[in-house]
Amino acid sequence: MTSDKKAILLIIDGLGDLPTPKTPLQTAKKPNLDKLAKDGITGLMSTIGRGIVPGSDTGHLQLLGYEPREYYHGRGPLEALGAGIALRNGDIAFRANFATAKGNNIVDRRAGRLETTIAKRLESVLNFEIEDVQCIFKSTVEHRGVLVLRGKGLSANISETDPHKNDHILESKPLDDSKEAKKTAAVVNAFTRSARDHLHVHEDNRKREKTGKPEANAVLLRGAGAYVKVPTITERFGITATCVAGGALYKGVAKYIGMSVLNVDGATGTADTNLKEKGKATVNALRGNDLVFLHVKGCDSFGHDGDFNGKTKMIERIDAELIPIIAKSGANLIITGDHSTPCIIKGHSGHEVPILIHGNERADEVKTFDEQSCMGGGLGHINGKDIMPIILNLIGKAKKYGS
Amino acid sequence: MTSDKKAILLIIDGLGDLPTPKTPLQTAKKPNLDKLAKDGITGLMSTIGRGIVPGSDTGHLQLLGYEPREYYHGRGPLEALGAGIALRNGDIAFRANFATAKGNNIVDRRAGRLETTIAKRLESVLNFEIEDVQCIFKSTVEHRGVLVLRGKGLSANISETDPHKNDHILESKPLDDSKEAKKTAAVVNAFTRSARDHLHVHEDNRKREKTGKPEANAVLLRGAGAYVKVPTITERFGITATCVAGGALYKGVAKYIGMSVLNVDGATGTADTNLKEKGKATVNALRGNDLVFLHVKGCDSFGHDGDFNGKTKMIERIDAELIPIIAKSGANLIITGDHSTPCIIKGHSGHEVPILIHGNERADEVKTFDEQSCMGGGLGHINGKDIMPIILNLIGKAKKYGS
Repeated sequence: MTSDKKAILLIIDGLGDLPTPKTPLQTAKKPNLDKLAKDGITGLMSTIGRGIVPGSDTGHLQLLGYEPREYYHGRGPLEALGAGIALRNGDIAFRANFATAKGNNIVDRRAGRLETTIAKRLESVLNFEIEDVQCIFKSTVEHRGVLVLRGKGLSANISETDPHKNDHILESKPLDDSKEAKKTAAVVNAFTRSARDHLHVHEDNRKREKTGKPEANAVLLRGAGAYVKVPTITERFGITATCVAGGALYKGVAKYIGMSVLNVDGATGTADTNLKEKGKATVNALRGNDLVFLHVKGCDSFGHDGDFNGKTKMIERIDAELIPIIAKSGANLIITGDHSTPCIIKGHSGHEVPILIHGNERADEVKTFDEQSCMGGGLGHINGKDIMPIILNLIGKAKKYGS
Repeated sequence: MTSDKKAILLIIDGLGDLPTPKTPLQTAKKPNLDKLAKDGITGLMSTIGRGIVPGSDTGHLQLLGYEPREYYHGRGPLEALGAGIALRNGDIAFRANFATAKGNNIVDRRAGRLETTIAKRLESVLNFEIEDVQCIFKSTVEHRGVLVLRGKGLSANISETDPHKNDHILESKPLDDSKEAKKTAAVVNAFTRSARDHLHVHEDNRKREKTGKPEANAVLLRGAGAYVKVPTITERFGITATCVAGGALYKGVAKYIGMSVLNVDGATGTADTNLKEKGKATVNALRGNDLVFLHVKGCDSFGHDGDFNGKTKMIERIDAELIPIIAKSGANLIITGDHSTPCIIKGHSGHEVPILIHGNERADEVKTFDEQSCMGGGLGHINGKDIMPIILNLIGKAKKYGS
């Protein structure tokens, strides 16, 4: 293995922030990231474009070289792939929540953050057929799951059933006049009714009723998308790549574009993730791959919660536990976020994200890695679409354009 | 002549590099370039896009305002134009090498770097007809040459015959099902066989055999492209322009886009080129032209050879012998490269190239011209496609967009 012909793309989800009066990156003690910034080149990146607020799905597609305007067909298929369902062309996939309904009204959109083990038991009664359409349901973490509709003549152009608040379950409606959209909306509504019937009689729900716990007696659907097989990252860029991530979405994005996905012990997709194990798995994976996409979720979650100290400490933990392992590998390192998640906004924002590159690059004068320092970085302001060409150039896998 | 309404675009081929720990530009003594940087404005440029590795052909087309995705049809036509062949619409042109074959195997892809004078004598036996197709062969420098096929119903969508290593000569194959591609592949294979027959009996080869020199008894073809006449630089941008270059490709790009081409004594396209003569010819050409495109090859060749000292000395020679002459002209100067050719990579790379502009521009704080200094330059990070609009703006020839 010649490490300088390999690359690690570390995405620290939601990394960027706004100063109050400092950002978490400016506050955190992070000697290892600062050392890389000092020896490498830095800048600021707009994942999709200046001011545009990226989703987690579109942001990662863009960073991995898949222009979302061409390759994004809704979150459902990415979540379903991440949950381990082998999708076929034309499958319609949804994100799903177990919820608690009283009558037709939702009283808890997460069924009391249903335990994962119980969700797994409920899963079995949600796999059935509606006419010629196969309903494939898989639970993932807590109240979360995915539904796939498999059959002929389906469309993702339908409205969702999730009211996104405690209100009545929405009826799915076709969003165009096609018979495919009408059929799919009808199947979704039939699924929703059947799911309530099957869940209502399930022994776990009967037990929950007796013990006063919120029943998981309804399924809410959103994020409909049709699966379309796309050319793999190997076909498009001539590289082999693998993914180290905890969250289903990131694994799903990786599978969608033909990357292999490593399952790492303790990679939870939450703040308690085992960073050392993820770092070791990443470095090991360099042996068989040109690129490892390493995803760490925690900072984004703290940003969503408005937890400045949590986000700062997560950065410090990444710096102490993860960075030394990947830095020692000798591979080219590209370290950035998929978007900003400012603690004072408690959501994604369109502010640029700091980026640092260490490896086959020039050094700039920047000595610390944060939003303000990187404004003067030698990369200037780049876009998410630049990342894959830059990686290919770093590892010597870029095809010359012309001769 | 009002010099400030004129511009010189100096392309120092392969100028950019990576630090080991300094780059050739950072190492070279170049007081004249540094003076221009101090008085002018600097920045970094990506010829095609961030990280994308430009070819010499696509890179120059882009810098001269011709978007390669629209105007690039293979290297062959550009080389053929540069070699002085007047192409017609539909001609199929190739880059060609004289090579040494034993049986069907190539044992020297360059026929011992055949002397240019001998190649010129061999040229005559390679001009003949195959059915209704005229084969026009012209030798250029050493073992290099071009072949043009002229006839009806030809296509460039065929595979090349050059194995790019010592192996057997490849058979050209059609790359689509069209009768044009089939016909052209058949003509190429017939040319290849006839060329061997004619070259085998040529008296120069008979002499070479007797004296133990590698015979130039085969022709290898690559870089097929169909010639399509494009609107001239005058038609598109309303300016007159000329080219001062040694290498055939750069002259060919210039002719392709309707620039005139000056032949300068001692402009060899190699490291021994006569920089003073090129400089004088450039300044003289400002009288009849709005823009002079001045190309200097040497730095790229040294980069390809991994010769750090050679590249550094070439920069010093450009600074001492060429820059004072063009700086004295009073014309706007745009000085950059077409891509980086880092000595440690020994090939083109996608790293940005420093650029400096001196003339009708603001000054920035940068006082030296190199990859690191220019990171902080007032131009920021620009693209190759920005160069022609910037030139037109500098010389007051930009058409207002809107009113």
